[in-house]
Amino acid sequence: MLYAHVTISLDGFMAGPDISRELPMGAGGERLHDWIFDPSPADREIIFDTFAAVGAVVLGRRTFDVGLDQWNDTPYPVPSFVVTHRTRDDLEMRSASFSFVGDLAAAVRRAHAAAGEKHVIIMGADVTRQALKAELVDELRLQLAPFTLGSGTRLFTGADRHVFECLDTRITPHATHLRYRVVCQRIAPRA
Amino acid sequence: MLYAHVTISLDGFMAGPDISRELPMGAGGERLHDWIFDPSPADREIIFDTFAAVGAVVLGRRTFDVGLDQWNDTPYPVPSFVVTHRTRDDLEMRSASFSFVGDLAAAVRRAHAAAGEKHVIIMGADVTRQALKAELVDELRLQLAPFTLGSGTRLFTGADRHVFECLDTRITPHATHLRYRVVCQRIAPRA
Repeated sequence: MLYAHVTISLDGFMAGPDISRELPMGAGGERLHDWIFDPSPADREIIFDTFAAVGAVVLGRRTFDVGLDQWNDTPYPVPSFVVTHRTRDDLEMRSASFSFVGDLAAAVRRAHAAAGEKHVIIMGADVTRQALKAELVDELRLQLAPFTLGSGTRLFTGADRHVFECLDTRITPHATHLRYRVVCQRIAPRA
Repeated sequence: MLYAHVTISLDGFMAGPDISRELPMGAGGERLHDWIFDPSPADREIIFDTFAAVGAVVLGRRTFDVGLDQWNDTPYPVPSFVVTHRTRDDLEMRSASFSFVGDLAAAVRRAHAAAGEKHVIIMGADVTRQALKAELVDELRLQLAPFTLGSGTRLFTGADRHVFECLDTRITPHATHLRYRVVCQRIAPRA
């Protein structure tokens, strides 16, 4: 199964404005990840379950660029596939390696092969949107942070329309964890 | 207690584009209210509880303008206060009356007085944002519809920053009902 794992603010931003290597979550955006860096016991359980379930990661070039210094490793200790036009040799890290793949669908295929029975996680605004559009995503795991950010990078932009089904929710102090199945890409016109 | 009662799509829209009297929820936006017009038993219970708890309504002029033909009454069977610069005489409807008040704070005061022990509901994008900014809102009851709309009117716009606490969640087929306490208006800078 491939799932997108995204934290957004209540006004829909997955990062604050002015993302850089120094501010990989943008200005003020680091608070979005309080559930990861200041976890409650329930958050810890969710993080642990995610680490146990993930077998490979697909991430965008921008996420790789801004995240690498912070992780100082692959984002999860599993093979990680960076979608980028500028391909290069694999980069060996402490836990696993980054591979650079020119095309999203190819990256997803290679990630599924590497993950075996485990899940593939997709990370990054652009690749997540592209993967939803290409109907490659099985689940959207949305952590809804209980505040507004005011500006930044949105998860959903433009006219793409998707239908989901909420499977379960879990409230922790720093996020409401929502698990959605992707039902379909387009909303059919009403009869 | 005053609460905002808002349905938004997963990409943050509380109505589709091109709102008019004919399309009060905008193009494609009527789906947002499937939980009201095609309710599951759980939705029905939430609707029933809301009707039982509400003692007065504060609504924006635009919501009044586009909603009146559809309701053919007040939106709930209780005194309803329309915030508008163009004040006029009260309008008697089947269940209750509309009063037209020049100022949001005054409308909220009159609504609380009319509601007595019951709650006041605020309706409409603009007045909800203004009321949040003025720290008049105690709870945000958000119905998160499980689809993206792509365009329309957003609940949250601009730079206003609010902090909430998620009190509970309830999944129904057409919405995930999230109840948030308003914690504060501004996010303090990090120490």
